[in-house]
Amino acid sequence: MRQPVLTLTTDFGASDHYVGAMKGVILSICPRAQIVDICHDVTPFQIAEGAYVIAQAYECFPRNTVHVVVVDPGVGTARRPILVEAAGQYFAGPDNGVLAMVYSRASHKVRLIANDRYFRQPVSASFHGRDIFAPVAAHVAAGVPPARMGKPIADYLRPEFAQPRPSGERTWTGSILKIDRFGNVVTNFHVRDFPDLRRPQSGTDAFVCQPAAPVLTIGRRKIASLAQNYAECTPGALFLIVGSSGYLEVSMNQGSAATQIGCQTGDPVKLTLG
Amino acid sequence: MRQPVLTLTTDFGASDHYVGAMKGVILSICPRAQIVDICHDVTPFQIAEGAYVIAQAYECFPRNTVHVVVVDPGVGTARRPILVEAAGQYFAGPDNGVLAMVYSRASHKVRLIANDRYFRQPVSASFHGRDIFAPVAAHVAAGVPPARMGKPIADYLRPEFAQPRPSGERTWTGSILKIDRFGNVVTNFHVRDFPDLRRPQSGTDAFVCQPAAPVLTIGRRKIASLAQNYAECTPGALFLIVGSSGYLEVSMNQGSAATQIGCQTGDPVKLTLG
Amino acid sequence: MRQPVLTLTTDFGASDHYVGAMKGVILSICPRAQIVDICHDVTPFQIAEGAYVIAQAYECFPRNTVHVVVVDPGVGTARRPILVEAAGQYFAGPDNGVLAMVYSRASHKVRLIANDRYFRQPVSASFHGRDIFAPVAAHVAAGVPPARMGKPIADYLRPEFAQPRPSGERTWTGSILKIDRFGNVVTNFHVRDFPDLRRPQSGTDAFVCQPAAPVLTIGRRKIASLAQNYAECTPGALFLIVGSSGYLEVSMNQGSAATQIGCQTGDPVKLTLG
Repeated sequence: MRQPVLTLTTDFGASDHYVGAMKGVILSICPRAQIVDICHDVTPFQIAEGAYVIAQAYECFPRNTVHVVVVDPGVGTARRPILVEAAGQYFAGPDNGVLAMVYSRASHKVRLIANDRYFRQPVSASFHGRDIFAPVAAHVAAGVPPARMGKPIADYLRPEFAQPRPSGERTWTGSILKIDRFGNVVTNFHVRDFPDLRRPQSGTDAFVCQPAAPVLTIGRRKIASLAQNYAECTPGALFLIVGSSGYLEVSMNQGSAATQIGCQTGDPVKLTLG
Repeated sequence: MRQPVLTLTTDFGASDHYVGAMKGVILSICPRAQIVDICHDVTPFQIAEGAYVIAQAYECFPRNTVHVVVVDPGVGTARRPILVEAAGQYFAGPDNGVLAMVYSRASHKVRLIANDRYFRQPVSASFHGRDIFAPVAAHVAAGVPPARMGKPIADYLRPEFAQPRPSGERTWTGSILKIDRFGNVVTNFHVRDFPDLRRPQSGTDAFVCQPAAPVLTIGRRKIASLAQNYAECTPGALFLIVGSSGYLEVSMNQGSAATQIGCQTGDPVKLTLG
Repeated sequence: MRQPVLTLTTDFGASDHYVGAMKGVILSICPRAQIVDICHDVTPFQIAEGAYVIAQAYECFPRNTVHVVVVDPGVGTARRPILVEAAGQYFAGPDNGVLAMVYSRASHKVRLIANDRYFRQPVSASFHGRDIFAPVAAHVAAGVPPARMGKPIADYLRPEFAQPRPSGERTWTGSILKIDRFGNVVTNFHVRDFPDLRRPQSGTDAFVCQPAAPVLTIGRRKIASLAQNYAECTPGALFLIVGSSGYLEVSMNQGSAATQIGCQTGDPVKLTLG
């Protein structure tokens, strides 16, 4: 029998007992769970960043994986707990948009989590990760039908995270989704929406950029060289690359593009296709 | 057959091979172990902080869980390795007080770890996490009776971590137990000892504070507003809340109360109940 | 049936989805895998540091463990992916030297990873951890014979990481391998090569240094006191100790030796044996 997989994505960091407490709750309910940490270092309270992280990761997981996603500045208020079914997987988290990038990629059903029989009692006002999301997810992983948790709802939050919009002749204005650990600047221009950035190939170089001369502008910097890998460029030079998630990124070989440019998550960027 | 659960709480951080080495030792002895990281970012050498972290987490774990707790500035000296049975679970760590908050909550038995047959050989002078605590815990998880490890002792260390003490009319002086990732300031005033802070309720709002007008003083700051959740207050305003572990905390909606106040772990705080 | 063990060592950090994506790929291929994080905080692009971390950890793991090691500044270039068999275990990573400290300790066989049937498709240019190393490792963990991945090669990279060399009468020049979380300065003088540093003993003090008067020089600092554990020295005083991996270290009781000295990874050190 397959071991249930349950993942955790939070802004709880690594220095407290919060993540450990959630794992204990999960294993008390579903002893066979394989618990997988996706990321606990989402910037505190940054819902859009959490939405990005889980959206990039879930597609790699097997069917029936249950994802717990807790970036939850509104914990304890009227914001609702929800359980989402999408892409053959499950997602438990607050109804604050942190699952919105999952909705936008797959057909989905959203349920209100309402059945407190599956909560850890007493439910605290400030730690629903431990008291609601972890136990509900563990019960689902253990085989409790999602319908037991609550009724489908249609009025869940679907924030429009920044999408690129046309702003001139072959020109679009987008924004920076994330600065990653290496200082790569991930923009919200995706090859799905900008197929000119991609040329499918055989073999191992699936994302190869055409010499179609894209130019990306961030502040006063213009970056025009398109690379196929991080190492082909001169150390210290900025270049564009379609990253592993399909978004256009600004990178630097063995250096931090973000530091070099001096940009941050949320900053506007401009793409012009030649 | 249930998969044994084994947790790790250390001050080893995430940038070395230390935690990985312990996991390898555990899986070599108990291949079926489900290994769970509770926290590896205890501030180096801070025994009281480690004691707080494991005490908050263990209650969420199932019976028979084996916890390895290594915050061990005295490694290699005469300080003794111990194995504790409490609350139906097991704890392996140094006898330096890091398990003292577990003792104070549950009846317990403390054994000296003395049987070097269960150690990894040769035992180094500086890494008993790998050479003593991990292998002993793994053998216990695999079913070796704790009594095999060594005899019960009574003279284990029980440091008195700061407890609030009366310091005036309806006034107590306590201290800051921990600053968490979000900047919440966790004091050592617990609702167990100060029931006036709590009013049990039905439903999801288990910890609701009465309008009994508690006032907390830290340095020159007085905080008097009691909230039921983080989000109900004005961003930037400090407030009191009974946190998810039952301790009175000072918090700020979407900001760091600790930074705002300028306080640290160990600082004194004063509570007055109106 | 034994659960396959698969470890991860990377420079991906904890704040992105990269590690989580690899775990999802592994569990999709080998659902029974026990995935173990060794370390994700290798300094970005520091191949030698990654080589050191995996070399210290792998010996603690059981036979047939599959290690994924990704410190890969050349991802997407002509640098080759390899699968190494050594010490009864397996290692998947780039052929850039990150596995070289494993070669130097055990007889080994190195295969070119060439069979793209075992890759995740499409293979990106920048995330071979997810697209090549994780899936190949997961297939090996699931029982696919290593020979299916590709042919043995002999011209894999074997960088000579700094080795101590004689530089005078009973004097050697070496370098700093790593500064650990506690500020311990790990040098590349190993008791294997400098048996004078060691005196095997019975019981728990396996590494005891002789009063053979070693003197270590870093910059203008000379450290001459040899200790057997961290706690026996005066707080604030620097001392030498043979660390848990067998390397000579400079340490300070409850303080950071590295900060006190002002030294970094790679700095030269001089050892004189009296």
